[in-house]
Amino acid sequence: MNLVSNKISQTPFNGGEVALVGSGPGDPELLTLRALRFIEQAEVTVYDRLVSDEIMALLPEHIEKFYVGKEQAKHCVPQDKINELLLDLARQGKRVLRLKGGDPFIFGRGGEEAQFLLENGISCHTCPGITAASGCTTYAGIPLTHRGVAQGCTFITGHMQNNGQLNLPWQSLACDSQTIVFYMGINTLPVITEQLIKHGRRSDTPVALIRKGTREDQEVYRGILKTLPQLAQKHKITPPTLIIIGDVVNELTSEAVSIPGFLSAQEYAAHLGTDKQVKYA
Amino acid sequence: MNLVSNKISQTPFNGGEVALVGSGPGDPELLTLRALRFIEQAEVTVYDRLVSDEIMALLPEHIEKFYVGKEQAKHCVPQDKINELLLDLARQGKRVLRLKGGDPFIFGRGGEEAQFLLENGISCHTCPGITAASGCTTYAGIPLTHRGVAQGCTFITGHMQNNGQLNLPWQSLACDSQTIVFYMGINTLPVITEQLIKHGRRSDTPVALIRKGTREDQEVYRGILKTLPQLAQKHKITPPTLIIIGDVVNELTSEAVSIPGFLSAQEYAAHLGTDKQVKYA
Repeated sequence: MNLVSNKISQTPFNGGEVALVGSGPGDPELLTLRALRFIEQAEVTVYDRLVSDEIMALLPEHIEKFYVGKEQAKHCVPQDKINELLLDLARQGKRVLRLKGGDPFIFGRGGEEAQFLLENGISCHTCPGITAASGCTTYAGIPLTHRGVAQGCTFITGHMQNNGQLNLPWQSLACDSQTIVFYMGINTLPVITEQLIKHGRRSDTPVALIRKGTREDQEVYRGILKTLPQLAQKHKITPPTLIIIGDVVNELTSEAVSIPGFLSAQEYAAHLGTDKQVKYA
Repeated sequence: MNLVSNKISQTPFNGGEVALVGSGPGDPELLTLRALRFIEQAEVTVYDRLVSDEIMALLPEHIEKFYVGKEQAKHCVPQDKINELLLDLARQGKRVLRLKGGDPFIFGRGGEEAQFLLENGISCHTCPGITAASGCTTYAGIPLTHRGVAQGCTFITGHMQNNGQLNLPWQSLACDSQTIVFYMGINTLPVITEQLIKHGRRSDTPVALIRKGTREDQEVYRGILKTLPQLAQKHKITPPTLIIIGDVVNELTSEAVSIPGFLSAQEYAAHLGTDKQVKYA
Protein backbone atom coordinates (compact mmCIF):
# COMPACT_ATOMS: atom_id res chain seq x y z
CA MET A 1 0.00 0.00 0.00
CA ASN A 2 2.96 2.33 0.56
CA LEU A 3 3.35 2.13 -3.20
CA VAL A 4 0.38 4.42 -3.45
CA SER A 5 0.12 6.42 -0.30
CA ASN A 6 2.51 9.18 -1.31
CA LYS A 7 1.21 9.70 -4.77
CA ILE A 8 -2.40 10.65 -4.31
CA SER A 9 -4.16 13.41 -2.50
CA GLN A 10 -6.57 11.97 -0.04
CA THR A 11 -9.48 13.93 1.32
CA PRO A 12 -9.47 13.18 5.05
CA PHE A 13 -12.36 11.10 6.44
CA ASN A 14 -13.47 13.12 9.44
CA GLY A 15 -15.79 12.31 12.30
CA GLY A 16 -19.39 13.26 11.59
CA GLU A 17 -19.06 12.39 7.91
CA VAL A 18 -20.49 9.48 5.94
CA ALA A 19 -18.62 7.62 3.21
CA LEU A 20 -20.96 6.07 0.62
CA VAL A 21 -18.83 3.25 -0.67
CA GLY A 22 -19.35 0.60 -3.34
CA SER A 23 -17.70 -2.71 -2.57
CA GLY A 24 -18.10 -4.23 -6.03
CA PRO A 25 -19.82 -7.47 -6.97
CA GLY A 26 -18.19 -9.85 -4.53
CA ASP A 27 -14.55 -10.67 -5.15
CA PRO A 28 -12.67 -8.65 -2.51
CA GLU A 29 -9.89 -8.10 -5.07
CA LEU A 30 -12.32 -5.79 -6.88
CA LEU A 31 -12.37 -3.34 -4.00
CA THR A 32 -10.79 -0.04 -4.95
CA LEU A 33 -7.93 1.41 -2.93
CA ARG A 34 -10.30 4.20 -2.02
CA ALA A 35 -12.91 1.78 -0.68
CA LEU A 36 -10.24 -0.01 1.33
CA ARG A 37 -9.09 3.27 2.85
CA PHE A 38 -12.61 4.08 4.05
CA ILE A 39 -13.01 0.53 5.38
CA GLU A 40 -9.79 0.87 7.35
CA GLN A 41 -10.70 4.28 8.76
CA ALA A 42 -14.35 3.64 9.61
CA GLU A 43 -15.61 3.73 13.18
CA VAL A 44 -18.99 2.25 12.39
CA THR A 45 -20.51 0.64 9.33
CA VAL A 46 -24.01 0.25 7.91
CA TYR A 47 -24.01 -2.49 5.30
CA ASP A 48 -26.23 -4.37 2.88
CA ARG A 49 -26.86 -8.01 2.17
CA LEU A 50 -24.99 -7.79 -1.12
CA VAL A 51 -21.65 -7.01 0.52
CA SER A 52 -19.72 -10.29 0.38
CA ASP A 53 -18.60 -12.10 3.52
CA GLU A 54 -14.98 -11.86 2.39
CA ILE A 55 -15.28 -8.09 2.28
CA MET A 56 -17.04 -7.91 5.64
CA ALA A 57 -14.08 -9.86 7.03
CA LEU A 58 -11.81 -6.94 6.10
CA LEU A 59 -13.60 -4.58 8.46
CA PRO A 60 -11.84 -3.88 11.74
CA GLU A 61 -13.29 -6.33 14.27
CA HIS A 62 -13.98 -3.83 17.01
CA ILE A 63 -16.20 -1.48 15.02
CA GLU A 64 -19.98 -1.46 15.24
CA LYS A 65 -21.74 -3.10 12.29
CA PHE A 66 -25.36 -2.46 11.39
CA TYR A 67 -26.94 -4.86 8.92
CA VAL A 68 -29.77 -3.24 6.99
CA GLY A 69 -30.58 -5.95 4.50
CA LYS A 70 -31.87 -4.86 1.13
CA GLU A 71 -33.39 -7.76 -0.58
CA GLN A 72 -35.59 -7.41 -3.58
CA ALA A 73 -39.09 -6.41 -2.46
CA LYS A 74 -38.14 -7.14 1.12
CA HIS A 75 -35.94 -4.42 2.58
CA CYS A 76 -35.01 -5.62 6.05
CA VAL A 77 -34.87 -1.99 7.09
CA PRO A 78 -36.96 0.56 5.15
CA GLN A 79 -35.00 3.26 3.34
CA ASP A 80 -36.14 6.07 5.63
CA LYS A 81 -34.93 4.12 8.66
CA ILE A 82 -31.54 3.59 6.99
CA ASN A 83 -31.35 7.33 6.33
CA GLU A 84 -32.17 8.08 9.96
CA LEU A 85 -29.61 5.57 11.22
CA LEU A 86 -26.85 7.13 9.07
CA LEU A 87 -27.80 10.59 10.28
CA ASP A 88 -27.88 9.51 13.90
CA LEU A 89 -24.46 7.86 13.71
CA ALA A 90 -22.93 10.86 11.93
CA ARG A 91 -24.39 13.20 14.54
CA GLN A 92 -22.60 11.15 17.18
CA GLY A 93 -19.42 12.40 15.50
CA LYS A 94 -18.40 9.05 14.10
CA ARG A 95 -16.73 8.23 10.80
CA VAL A 96 -19.63 6.34 9.24
CA LEU A 97 -19.03 3.83 6.46
CA ARG A 98 -22.10 3.12 4.33
CA LEU A 99 -21.00 -0.02 2.51
CA LYS A 100 -23.00 -1.32 -0.43
CA GLY A 101 -22.66 -4.15 -2.92
CA GLY A 102 -21.74 -3.05 -6.44
CA ASP A 103 -21.90 0.70 -6.95
CA PRO A 104 -23.87 3.06 -4.68
CA PHE A 105 -25.20 5.17 -7.54
CA ILE A 106 -26.31 2.45 -9.94
CA PHE A 107 -29.46 0.97 -8.37
CA GLY A 108 -27.91 1.45 -4.93
CA ARG A 109 -29.98 4.38 -3.66
CA GLY A 110 -26.75 6.19 -2.83
CA GLY A 111 -28.23 9.35 -4.29
CA GLU A 112 -31.18 9.23 -1.91
CA GLU A 113 -28.95 8.73 1.10
CA ALA A 114 -26.57 11.50 0.08
CA GLN A 115 -29.50 13.84 -0.48
CA PHE A 116 -31.00 13.15 2.92
CA LEU A 117 -27.67 13.55 4.69
CA LEU A 118 -26.76 16.78 2.90
CA GLU A 119 -30.18 18.23 3.70
CA ASN A 120 -29.41 17.49 7.32
CA GLY A 121 -25.97 19.05 7.30
CA ILE A 122 -23.85 15.92 6.94
CA SER A 123 -21.02 15.83 4.39
CA CYS A 124 -20.54 12.69 2.29
CA HIS A 125 -17.59 11.06 0.60
CA THR A 126 -18.57 9.20 -2.55
CA CYS A 127 -16.75 6.11 -3.74
CA PRO A 128 -17.85 4.23 -6.85
CA GLY A 129 -17.61 0.45 -6.97
CA ILE A 130 -17.33 -1.98 -9.85
CA THR A 131 -20.98 -2.40 -10.72
CA ALA A 132 -22.29 -5.95 -11.08
CA ALA A 133 -22.99 -5.54 -14.80
CA SER A 134 -19.32 -4.84 -15.41
CA GLY A 135 -17.62 -7.16 -12.93
CA CYS A 136 -19.81 -10.21 -13.44
CA THR A 137 -19.65 -10.11 -17.24
CA THR A 138 -15.89 -9.56 -17.23
CA TYR A 139 -15.34 -12.56 -14.98
CA ALA A 140 -17.63 -14.62 -17.22
CA GLY A 141 -15.80 -13.71 -20.43
CA ILE A 142 -18.55 -11.47 -21.81
CA PRO A 143 -17.57 -8.00 -23.11
CA LEU A 144 -20.34 -5.41 -22.63
CA THR A 145 -19.48 -3.70 -25.91
CA HIS A 146 -17.74 -5.22 -28.93
CA ARG A 147 -17.03 -3.60 -32.27
CA GLY A 148 -19.58 -4.66 -34.85
CA VAL A 149 -21.66 -6.46 -32.24
CA ALA A 150 -22.76 -4.04 -29.52
CA GLN A 151 -22.22 -0.32 -29.71
CA GLY A 152 -23.53 0.40 -26.24
CA CYS A 153 -25.00 -1.08 -23.09
CA THR A 154 -27.99 -0.38 -20.91
CA PHE A 155 -28.42 -1.22 -17.23
CA ILE A 156 -31.96 -1.47 -15.89
CA THR A 157 -33.93 -3.17 -13.16
CA GLY A 158 -36.53 -5.78 -13.96
CA HIS A 159 -38.39 -5.81 -10.69
CA MET A 160 -42.04 -4.98 -10.36
CA GLN A 161 -43.20 -1.48 -9.53
CA ASN A 162 -45.39 -1.05 -6.48
CA ASN A 163 -48.43 -1.33 -8.74
CA GLY A 164 -47.45 -4.88 -9.71
CA GLN A 165 -46.54 -3.77 -13.22
CA LEU A 166 -43.24 -3.85 -15.03
CA ASN A 167 -43.34 -0.59 -16.95
CA LEU A 168 -40.14 -0.37 -18.95
CA PRO A 169 -39.24 1.41 -22.18
CA TRP A 170 -39.51 -1.83 -24.14
CA GLN A 171 -39.09 -0.21 -27.52
CA SER A 172 -35.75 1.20 -26.40
CA LEU A 173 -34.60 -2.09 -24.94
CA ALA A 174 -35.47 -4.07 -28.03
CA CYS A 175 -32.69 -2.42 -30.05
CA ASP A 176 -30.33 -5.16 -31.27
CA SER A 177 -27.15 -3.10 -31.16
CA GLN A 178 -27.31 -2.68 -27.38
CA THR A 179 -26.34 -5.08 -24.63
CA ILE A 180 -29.01 -5.07 -21.94
CA VAL A 181 -28.22 -5.97 -18.35
CA PHE A 182 -31.09 -6.48 -15.94
CA TYR A 183 -30.32 -6.10 -12.26
CA MET A 184 -33.04 -8.00 -10.46
CA GLY A 185 -35.61 -9.50 -12.74
CA ILE A 186 -35.60 -13.23 -12.16
CA ASN A 187 -39.21 -13.11 -11.02
CA THR A 188 -40.31 -11.16 -14.07
CA LEU A 189 -38.41 -13.11 -16.74
CA PRO A 190 -41.56 -14.19 -18.60
CA VAL A 191 -42.62 -10.55 -19.00
CA ILE A 192 -39.14 -9.43 -19.99
CA THR A 193 -38.85 -12.14 -22.64
CA GLU A 194 -42.33 -11.59 -24.02
CA GLN A 195 -42.06 -7.81 -24.21
CA LEU A 196 -38.59 -7.72 -25.76
CA ILE A 197 -39.58 -10.15 -28.51
CA LYS A 198 -42.90 -8.39 -29.03
CA HIS A 199 -41.02 -5.12 -29.54
CA GLY A 200 -38.65 -6.63 -32.06
CA ARG A 201 -35.68 -8.14 -30.30
CA ARG A 202 -34.63 -11.36 -32.06
CA SER A 203 -35.96 -14.41 -30.23
CA ASP A 204 -32.61 -16.16 -30.73
CA THR A 205 -30.65 -13.33 -29.12
CA PRO A 206 -28.04 -14.91 -26.84
CA VAL A 207 -28.65 -14.49 -23.10
CA ALA A 208 -26.77 -15.34 -19.95
CA LEU A 209 -27.69 -15.65 -16.30
CA ILE A 210 -24.87 -14.96 -13.84
CA ARG A 211 -25.22 -15.96 -10.19
CA LYS A 212 -22.61 -15.25 -7.53
CA GLY A 213 -20.66 -13.38 -10.17
CA THR A 214 -16.92 -12.79 -9.55
CA ARG A 215 -16.98 -15.26 -6.65
CA GLU A 216 -15.21 -18.59 -6.68
CA ASP A 217 -18.53 -20.39 -7.07
CA GLN A 218 -19.74 -18.16 -9.89
CA GLU A 219 -22.44 -19.75 -12.07
CA VAL A 220 -23.01 -18.76 -15.70
CA TYR A 221 -25.83 -20.20 -17.79
CA ARG A 222 -26.26 -19.36 -21.45
CA GLY A 223 -29.28 -19.70 -23.70
CA ILE A 224 -31.45 -17.68 -26.04
CA LEU A 225 -34.04 -15.02 -25.31
CA LYS A 226 -37.01 -17.12 -26.37
CA THR A 227 -36.40 -19.73 -23.67
CA LEU A 228 -34.91 -17.50 -20.98
CA PRO A 229 -37.59 -18.28 -18.35
CA GLN A 230 -37.06 -22.01 -18.90
CA LEU A 231 -33.29 -21.57 -18.58
CA ALA A 232 -33.79 -19.98 -15.17
CA GLN A 233 -36.25 -22.68 -14.12
CA LYS A 234 -33.98 -25.49 -15.24
CA HIS A 235 -31.10 -24.22 -13.11
CA LYS A 236 -33.35 -23.19 -10.22
CA ILE A 237 -32.07 -19.62 -10.42
CA THR A 238 -32.91 -17.32 -7.52
CA PRO A 239 -32.09 -13.66 -6.92
CA PRO A 240 -29.65 -11.98 -6.92
CA THR A 241 -28.84 -12.97 -10.47
CA LEU A 242 -27.74 -10.76 -13.31
CA ILE A 243 -29.43 -11.15 -16.71
CA ILE A 244 -27.42 -10.33 -19.84
CA ILE A 245 -29.15 -10.01 -23.20
CA GLY A 246 -27.25 -9.43 -26.43
CA ASP A 247 -25.00 -10.86 -29.09
CA VAL A 248 -21.90 -10.21 -26.96
CA VAL A 249 -22.84 -13.15 -24.74
CA ASN A 250 -21.15 -15.76 -26.94
CA GLU A 251 -18.61 -13.49 -28.59
CA LEU A 252 -15.54 -14.69 -26.70
CA THR A 253 -16.74 -18.09 -25.59
CA SER A 254 -20.00 -19.92 -25.38
CA GLU A 255 -18.72 -22.13 -22.57
CA ALA A 256 -18.32 -21.75 -18.86
CA VAL A 257 -15.09 -20.15 -17.70
CA SER A 258 -13.68 -22.53 -15.10
CA ILE A 259 -11.68 -19.85 -13.26
CA PRO A 260 -13.70 -16.61 -13.03
CA GLY A 261 -11.66 -13.73 -14.45
CA PHE A 262 -9.31 -16.00 -16.40
CA LEU A 263 -9.74 -16.95 -20.04
CA SER A 264 -7.71 -20.08 -20.57
CA ALA A 265 -6.22 -20.71 -24.00
CA GLN A 266 -6.43 -24.43 -23.31
CA GLU A 267 -10.14 -24.26 -22.57
CA TYR A 268 -10.63 -22.07 -25.60
CA ALA A 269 -8.83 -24.53 -27.88
CA ALA A 270 -10.91 -27.38 -26.49
CA HIS A 271 -14.08 -25.43 -27.33
CA LEU A 272 -12.80 -24.86 -30.85
CA GLY A 273 -13.29 -28.56 -31.41
CA THR A 274 -17.02 -28.08 -30.99
CA ASP A 275 -19.32 -25.24 -31.90
CA LYS A 276 -16.63 -22.61 -32.31
CA GLN A 277 -15.06 -24.48 -35.19
CA VAL A 278 -17.01 -22.79 -37.90
CA LYS A 279 -16.59 -19.33 -36.54
CA TYR A 280 -12.86 -19.44 -36.01
CA ALA A 281 -11.86 -21.84 -38.78
CA MET B 1 -2.13 -4.87 1.61
CA ASN B 2 -1.49 -7.78 3.98
CA LEU B 3 -5.01 -7.04 5.17
CA VAL B 4 -6.24 -8.74 2.06
CA SER B 5 -3.60 -11.14 0.85
CA ASN B 6 -4.65 -14.09 2.98
CA LYS B 7 -8.33 -13.86 2.34
CA ILE B 8 -8.68 -14.21 -1.40
CA SER B 9 -7.71 -16.84 -3.85
CA GLN B 10 -5.48 -15.32 -6.45
CA THR B 11 -5.03 -16.88 -9.85
CA PRO B 12 -1.27 -16.67 -10.48
CA PHE B 13 -0.06 -14.34 -13.24
CA ASN B 14 2.28 -16.55 -15.24
CA GLY B 15 4.79 -15.75 -17.95
CA GLY B 16 3.29 -15.92 -21.41
CA GLU B 17 -0.06 -14.58 -20.21
CA VAL B 18 -1.70 -11.21 -20.77
CA ALA B 19 -3.66 -9.33 -18.11
CA LEU B 20 -6.32 -7.03 -19.61
CA VAL B 21 -6.68 -4.46 -16.87
CA GLY B 22 -8.88 -1.41 -16.44
CA SER B 23 -7.25 1.41 -14.52
CA GLY B 24 -10.40 3.47 -13.97
CA PRO B 25 -11.04 7.06 -14.96
CA GLY B 26 -7.94 8.72 -13.53
CA ASP B 27 -7.75 8.95 -9.74
CA PRO B 28 -5.23 6.25 -8.77
CA GLU B 29 -7.32 5.60 -5.66
CA LEU B 30 -9.91 4.07 -7.97
CA LEU B 31 -7.58 1.26 -8.96
CA THR B 32 -8.82 -2.09 -7.73
CA LEU B 33 -6.62 -4.30 -5.59
CA ARG B 34 -6.64 -6.74 -8.49
CA ALA B 35 -5.37 -4.11 -10.92
CA LEU B 36 -2.64 -3.14 -8.49
CA ARG B 37 -1.54 -6.77 -8.18
CA PHE B 38 -1.16 -7.11 -11.95
CA ILE B 39 0.69 -3.78 -12.07
CA GLU B 40 3.11 -4.97 -9.41
CA GLN B 41 3.70 -8.34 -11.10
CA ALA B 42 3.99 -7.19 -14.70
CA GLU B 43 7.22 -7.55 -16.66
CA VAL B 44 6.10 -5.39 -19.55
CA THR B 45 3.16 -3.09 -20.15
CA VAL B 46 1.25 -1.89 -23.19
CA TYR B 47 -0.78 1.17 -22.24
CA ASP B 48 -3.19 3.75 -23.63
CA ARG B 49 -3.35 7.51 -23.58
CA LEU B 50 -6.22 7.45 -21.10
CA VAL B 51 -4.19 5.84 -18.32
CA SER B 52 -3.39 8.70 -15.94
CA ASP B 53 0.18 9.81 -15.21
CA GLU B 54 -0.34 9.08 -11.52
CA ILE B 55 -1.17 5.48 -12.35
CA MET B 56 1.75 5.13 -14.75
CA ALA B 57 3.96 6.29 -11.88
CA LEU B 58 2.93 3.18 -9.95
CA LEU B 59 4.49 0.85 -12.51
CA PRO B 60 7.85 -0.62 -11.58
CA GLU B 61 10.49 1.64 -13.15
CA HIS B 62 12.55 -1.08 -14.72
CA ILE B 63 9.81 -2.65 -16.84
CA GLU B 64 9.36 -2.01 -20.54
CA LYS B 65 6.50 0.31 -21.39
CA PHE B 66 4.86 0.50 -24.81
CA TYR B 67 2.62 3.47 -25.48
CA VAL B 68 -0.05 2.69 -28.05
CA GLY B 69 -2.11 5.83 -27.90
CA LYS B 70 -5.79 5.50 -28.62
CA GLU B 71 -7.16 8.84 -29.34
CA GLN B 72 -10.53 9.35 -30.87
CA ALA B 73 -10.29 8.85 -34.64
CA LYS B 74 -6.51 8.82 -34.38
CA HIS B 75 -5.21 5.59 -32.96
CA CYS B 76 -1.47 6.07 -32.60
CA VAL B 77 -1.08 2.37 -33.21
CA PRO B 78 -3.79 0.55 -35.21
CA GLN B 79 -5.69 -2.15 -33.34
CA ASP B 80 -4.17 -5.02 -35.32
CA LYS B 81 -0.67 -3.79 -34.48
CA ILE B 82 -1.59 -3.64 -30.79
CA ASN B 83 -2.87 -7.20 -31.02
CA GLU B 84 0.38 -8.34 -32.66
CA LEU B 85 2.49 -6.54 -30.07
CA LEU B 86 0.63 -8.23 -27.20
CA LEU B 87 1.00 -11.61 -28.88
CA ASP B 88 4.69 -11.08 -29.54
CA LEU B 89 5.42 -10.05 -25.94
CA ALA B 90 3.42 -12.99 -24.56
CA ARG B 91 5.26 -15.39 -26.84
CA GLN B 92 8.50 -14.10 -25.34
CA GLY B 93 7.24 -15.65 -22.13
CA LYS B 94 6.65 -12.36 -20.35
CA ARG B 95 3.90 -11.38 -17.95
CA VAL B 96 2.21 -8.78 -20.13
CA LEU B 97 0.08 -6.04 -18.60
CA ARG B 98 -2.39 -4.49 -21.03
CA LEU B 99 -3.40 -1.36 -19.14
CA LYS B 100 -6.36 0.70 -20.27
CA GLY B 101 -8.20 3.75 -19.03
CA GLY B 102 -11.63 3.03 -17.58
CA ASP B 103 -12.83 -0.51 -18.19
CA PRO B 104 -11.40 -2.77 -20.92
CA PHE B 105 -14.80 -4.16 -21.92
CA ILE B 106 -16.82 -0.96 -22.10
CA PHE B 107 -15.58 0.81 -25.25
CA GLY B 108 -12.07 -0.45 -24.51
CA ARG B 109 -11.74 -3.12 -27.20
CA GLY B 110 -10.70 -5.58 -24.54
CA GLY B 111 -12.95 -8.18 -26.14
CA GLU B 112 -11.15 -7.88 -29.46
CA GLU B 113 -7.75 -8.23 -27.85
CA ALA B 114 -8.81 -11.20 -25.74
CA GLN B 115 -10.29 -12.87 -28.81
CA PHE B 116 -7.14 -12.43 -30.86
CA LEU B 117 -4.91 -13.67 -28.05
CA LEU B 118 -7.06 -16.71 -27.29
CA GLU B 119 -7.17 -17.62 -30.97
CA ASN B 120 -3.39 -17.59 -30.86
CA GLY B 121 -3.09 -19.73 -27.77
CA ILE B 122 -2.47 -17.01 -25.19
CA SER B 123 -4.43 -17.05 -21.91
CA CYS B 124 -5.81 -13.79 -20.54
CA HIS B 125 -6.64 -12.48 -17.11
CA THR B 126 -9.52 -10.02 -17.12
CA CYS B 127 -9.81 -7.18 -14.67
CA PRO B 128 -12.66 -4.68 -14.82
CA GLY B 129 -12.06 -1.04 -14.00
CA ILE B 130 -14.36 1.70 -12.78
CA THR B 131 -15.76 2.90 -16.07
CA ALA B 132 -15.71 6.64 -16.75
CA ALA B 133 -19.51 6.91 -16.72
CA SER B 134 -19.58 5.67 -13.14
CA GLY B 135 -16.45 7.25 -11.66
CA CYS B 136 -16.78 10.68 -13.22
CA THR B 137 -20.44 11.11 -12.31
CA THR B 138 -19.88 9.91 -8.76
CA TYR B 139 -17.06 12.40 -8.25
CA ALA B 140 -19.26 15.14 -9.70
CA GLY B 141 -22.21 14.42 -7.39
CA ILE B 142 -24.44 12.93 -10.11
CA PRO B 143 -26.14 9.57 -9.42
CA LEU B 144 -26.64 7.47 -12.57
CA THR B 145 -29.96 6.15 -11.32
CA HIS B 146 -32.31 7.76 -8.81
CA ARG B 147 -35.70 6.55 -7.67
CA GLY B 148 -38.48 8.42 -9.44
CA VAL B 149 -35.98 10.17 -11.73
CA ALA B 150 -33.98 7.60 -13.71
CA GLN B 151 -34.75 3.91 -13.71
CA GLY B 152 -31.74 2.93 -15.78
CA CYS B 153 -28.68 4.17 -17.63
CA THR B 154 -27.21 3.72 -21.08
CA PHE B 155 -23.58 4.07 -22.12
CA ILE B 156 -22.88 4.74 -25.76
CA THR B 157 -20.26 6.34 -27.99
CA GLY B 158 -21.03 9.45 -29.93
CA HIS B 159 -18.20 9.31 -32.41
CA MET B 160 -18.68 9.11 -36.13
CA GLN B 161 -18.71 5.80 -37.93
CA ASN B 162 -16.23 5.33 -40.75
CA ASN B 163 -18.91 6.46 -43.18
CA GLY B 164 -19.03 9.87 -41.51
CA GLN B 165 -22.46 9.18 -40.07
CA LEU B 166 -23.60 8.93 -36.49
CA ASN B 167 -26.05 6.07 -36.67
CA LEU B 168 -27.47 5.60 -33.20
CA PRO B 169 -30.76 4.18 -31.94
CA TRP B 170 -32.12 7.67 -31.33
CA GLN B 171 -35.60 6.52 -30.47
CA SER B 172 -34.17 4.38 -27.68
CA LEU B 173 -31.97 7.15 -26.38
CA ALA B 174 -34.77 9.70 -26.29
CA CYS B 175 -36.54 7.90 -23.45
CA ASP B 176 -36.83 10.32 -20.50
CA SER B 177 -36.51 7.71 -17.77
CA GLN B 178 -32.96 6.77 -18.75
CA THR B 179 -29.70 8.53 -18.01
CA ILE B 180 -27.55 8.59 -21.16
CA VAL B 181 -23.78 8.81 -20.99
CA PHE B 182 -21.86 9.47 -24.17
CA TYR B 183 -18.24 8.40 -24.25
CA MET B 184 -16.62 10.48 -26.97
CA GLY B 185 -19.01 12.72 -28.76
CA ILE B 186 -17.78 16.26 -28.32
CA ASN B 187 -17.34 16.63 -32.06
CA THR B 188 -20.84 15.39 -32.78
CA LEU B 189 -22.73 17.34 -30.12
CA PRO B 190 -24.90 19.25 -32.62
CA VAL B 191 -26.12 15.95 -34.10
CA ILE B 192 -26.67 14.38 -30.69
CA THR B 193 -28.69 17.36 -29.49
CA GLU B 194 -30.74 17.65 -32.65
CA GLN B 195 -31.56 13.95 -32.90
CA LEU B 196 -32.47 13.47 -29.25
CA ILE B 197 -34.85 16.42 -29.28
CA LYS B 198 -36.28 15.37 -32.64
CA HIS B 199 -37.02 11.93 -31.20
CA GLY B 200 -38.78 13.34 -28.18
CA ARG B 201 -36.27 14.02 -25.44
CA ARG B 202 -37.21 17.21 -23.60
CA SER B 203 -35.11 20.14 -24.80
CA ASP B 204 -34.70 21.33 -21.20
CA THR B 205 -33.30 17.98 -20.05
CA PRO B 206 -30.35 18.71 -17.76
CA VAL B 207 -26.92 17.87 -19.17
CA ALA B 208 -23.37 17.90 -17.86
CA LEU B 209 -19.95 17.81 -19.45
CA ILE B 210 -17.20 16.28 -17.33
CA ARG B 211 -13.55 16.77 -18.26
CA LYS B 212 -10.65 15.20 -16.39
CA GLY B 213 -13.19 13.42 -14.24
CA THR B 214 -12.05 12.09 -10.83
CA ARG B 215 -8.82 14.08 -11.12
CA GLU B 216 -7.93 17.00 -8.92
CA ASP B 217 -8.56 19.41 -11.77
CA GLN B 218 -11.92 17.87 -12.71
CA GLU B 219 -14.20 20.23 -14.64
CA VAL B 220 -17.99 19.90 -14.59
CA TYR B 221 -20.25 22.12 -16.67
CA ARG B 222 -24.02 21.94 -16.47
CA GLY B 223 -26.66 23.12 -18.88
CA ILE B 224 -29.67 21.90 -20.80
CA LEU B 225 -29.89 19.68 -23.84
CA LYS B 226 -31.07 22.41 -26.19
CA THR B 227 -27.89 24.44 -25.78
CA LEU B 228 -25.42 21.61 -25.20
CA PRO B 229 -23.22 22.45 -28.22
CA GLN B 230 -22.98 26.06 -27.04
CA LEU B 231 -22.07 24.91 -23.52
CA ALA B 232 -19.15 22.95 -24.95
CA GLN B 233 -18.09 25.85 -27.13
CA LYS B 234 -18.27 28.34 -24.30
CA HIS B 235 -15.92 26.29 -22.14
CA LYS B 236 -13.71 25.26 -25.06
CA ILE B 237 -14.32 21.59 -24.31
CA THR B 238 -12.07 19.09 -26.04
CA PRO B 239 -12.02 15.28 -25.90
CA PRO B 240 -11.88 13.21 -23.80
CA THR B 241 -15.00 14.56 -22.16
CA LEU B 242 -17.96 12.62 -20.83
CA ILE B 243 -21.46 13.82 -21.72
CA ILE B 244 -24.29 13.12 -19.27
CA ILE B 245 -27.91 13.61 -20.30
CA GLY B 246 -30.78 13.18 -17.88
CA ASP B 247 -32.72 14.57 -14.96
CA VAL B 248 -30.24 13.08 -12.49
CA VAL B 249 -27.72 15.77 -13.41
CA ASN B 250 -29.07 18.32 -10.94
CA GLU B 251 -30.63 15.90 -8.49
CA LEU B 252 -28.04 16.23 -5.72
CA THR B 253 -26.56 19.58 -6.59
CA SER B 254 -26.60 21.92 -9.52
CA GLU B 255 -23.26 23.42 -8.53
CA ALA B 256 -19.66 22.44 -8.97
CA VAL B 257 -18.27 20.13 -6.31
CA SER B 258 -15.08 21.80 -5.14
CA ILE B 259 -13.42 18.56 -3.97
CA PRO B 260 -14.15 15.74 -6.45
CA GLY B 261 -15.70 12.79 -4.61
CA PHE B 262 -16.74 14.86 -1.62
CA LEU B 263 -20.18 16.40 -1.15
CA SER B 264 -19.75 19.16 1.39
CA ALA B 265 -22.69 20.02 3.62
CA GLN B 266 -21.38 23.56 3.83
CA GLU B 267 -21.36 23.98 0.08
CA TYR B 268 -24.78 22.37 -0.10
CA ALA B 269 -26.21 24.78 2.46
CA ALA B 270 -24.71 27.71 0.59
CA HIS B 271 -26.44 26.52 -2.59
CA LEU B 272 -29.71 26.23 -0.71
CA GLY B 273 -29.67 29.98 -0.49
CA THR B 274 -30.01 30.16 -4.24
CA ASP B 275 -31.80 27.95 -6.70
CA LYS B 276 -32.19 24.96 -4.40
CA GLN B 277 -34.33 26.92 -1.97
CA VAL B 278 -37.64 26.03 -3.48
CA LYS B 279 -36.87 22.40 -3.88
CA TYR B 280 -35.61 21.70 -0.38
CA ALA B 281 -37.62 24.26 1.58
